[in-house]
Amino acid sequence: MRKILLSSVALASFLTASDLRDEALKSGLVALPNDAKALAKMIDDASPDAKAYPTTMARIELGKRLYFDPRLSKSGIISCNTCHNLGLGGADGIPASTGHKWTPNPHHINAPTVYNSVFNSVQFWDGRAAHLAAQAAGPMTAEPEMASTPELVVDRLKSIPTYVYEFKKAFDSEINFELVTTAIGIFERTLVTPSRFDKFLNGDENALNKNEKAGFKIFIDKGCVNCHNGVNLGGTLQPFEVASKYQFADVGDFKGDANGMVKAPTLRNIELTAPYFHNGAIWSLKEAIKTMGSVQLGIDISDKEADSIGIFLKSLTGDMPKIEYPMLPASTDKTSKPELDY
Amino acid sequence: MRKILLSSVALASFLTASDLRDEALKSGLVALPNDAKALAKMIDDASPDAKAYPTTMARIELGKRLYFDPRLSKSGIISCNTCHNLGLGGADGIPASTGHKWTPNPHHINAPTVYNSVFNSVQFWDGRAAHLAAQAAGPMTAEPEMASTPELVVDRLKSIPTYVYEFKKAFDSEINFELVTTAIGIFERTLVTPSRFDKFLNGDENALNKNEKAGFKIFIDKGCVNCHNGVNLGGTLQPFEVASKYQFADVGDFKGDANGMVKAPTLRNIELTAPYFHNGAIWSLKEAIKTMGSVQLGIDISDKEADSIGIFLKSLTGDMPKIEYPMLPASTDKTSKPELDY
Repeated sequence: MRKILLSSVALASFLTASDLRDEALKSGLVALPNDAKALAKMIDDASPDAKAYPTTMARIELGKRLYFDPRLSKSGIISCNTCHNLGLGGADGIPASTGHKWTPNPHHINAPTVYNSVFNSVQFWDGRAAHLAAQAAGPMTAEPEMASTPELVVDRLKSIPTYVYEFKKAFDSEINFELVTTAIGIFERTLVTPSRFDKFLNGDENALNKNEKAGFKIFIDKGCVNCHNGVNLGGTLQPFEVASKYQFADVGDFKGDANGMVKAPTLRNIELTAPYFHNGAIWSLKEAIKTMGSVQLGIDISDKEADSIGIFLKSLTGDMPKIEYPMLPASTDKTSKPELDY
Repeated sequence: MRKILLSSVALASFLTASDLRDEALKSGLVALPNDAKALAKMIDDASPDAKAYPTTMARIELGKRLYFDPRLSKSGIISCNTCHNLGLGGADGIPASTGHKWTPNPHHINAPTVYNSVFNSVQFWDGRAAHLAAQAAGPMTAEPEMASTPELVVDRLKSIPTYVYEFKKAFDSEINFELVTTAIGIFERTLVTPSRFDKFLNGDENALNKNEKAGFKIFIDKGCVNCHNGVNLGGTLQPFEVASKYQFADVGDFKGDANGMVKAPTLRNIELTAPYFHNGAIWSLKEAIKTMGSVQLGIDISDKEADSIGIFLKSLTGDMPKIEYPMLPASTDKTSKPELDY
């Protein structure tokens, strides 16, 4: 009898790779294409501002500099990369991002990864920004984050001749705040990380090993895929059971704004971006998996199943783009001084 | 009469490039060699720990990761690169570095550039560290900087299997704090920036233009070269007129320790590393030049001469090494949590 009562982990291993793939695609999961041209088109299609501002090399390079330039902050020491660190999975590894004057995010919100964020249907946890450029304006001007103003950012950049030249080259325009955030957004479009998961969905049956396939099957069967769907395994607004069951009821400013909807985070590179949840309260991926089961799905996910799902999720760790650290142009006598507000 | 009273700027332009070069070499200035092998030897000769710990690719790569890894700090958000930002000339562009809990350096000390620091005869403003690895231990464990302890650093790194593997590969050893600082120091050895100044000293007479040569001549004639000498145009301990004339008497913790001696900063990349002086009180390079003239040399440097010296100093802005931003290995369940101490 004991031999017949196979666990779902064991059962999953009987499934053929081709069946699993069909099931995944039927569930709405989408792969990043292997082909670079197709990938570029997918990125464009996911960027509401791509028609107005197509991706060009000059814009990517400019956006990269801005992304790494701490002078966009009031203090001069916080850049986009401080909280969305490209070396740390595109996040910062702490529960709530810490900004100007060492202030924790007042809503105790965890910084989401910037990798693959172009594929989120909306940006911010509450989905209040339609695209990456609109998101970039937020932290830059939030008092407890980079604490800048659009005027401060534009004035600083205008005081640096290399930036004046680069905006002219990239946008045929003087510097303005919309172009600053647009350039950053265009750089962020490039931060996509194809993984073995994509290879598998694209038809390479051996791209995932047996244990990863088993975990993938459980991930689908348990219903995780209901919210963690599409090309980003997340990134769309979903109903969020704050009121009823979610154990961190005080996690955000999105409750009112989004009518109880919240952006399910992408699961790509999830292995790299602990701590988890909107308030970064959970450090263990296994615990996060089990909690989501009980809270969002109303089911029990066993330790063994959670381990198995975790093994699958690690196959979503992608190939990071090679990023040459940008050398930033020197400030001039006209550049406004950093304000540390000690 | 007016036509005969030529300024020293105009006079300098009569000097042949070859004479100027001879004078520079006689003054004790030394070029970075054009040849990579000779440069590597010069770096080794400048590294007191190079015999015990030769430079290898594995050590450079490991050291680079550590340099950029904010998990070496107590908070998990401050790395070596925060205050010695390789995109900002190897410094941070603020008067006094701001560390854990947004604390300004209690001695109001400006972060010196890490570029070419291997050629400083001693490290720190007061010269209390003999080499780069010894320096690296300081900020990491200073309460108002990265606020770590050697134990915290080693425990965090030991909890991350990729680091365990990389230390084994690089040093054939378990992780210990000496090897952490040694690896960072070895990475820093590579941060050298050959410039047009070096090409000129190496015999390319056209590497500097007429105005730069004129400024160079004034730089030598005025005596700037007395302290800003050797391969780094600085980087050695010099008597410092704190007691008598220097207008920033409260600038450091080096007064007692170093018997009134202070490390003259390198002038390489000086254009990129405002604000200037030990306390970062002066933002304008011209003002810094004039102040050093009156305070350290007891002479008046005219506006025109200071401009001319400034033009020369910008020829010291070097070719920055290409640095691929390192992707850092993921933390694990065993990694100790960041402590923000809000």
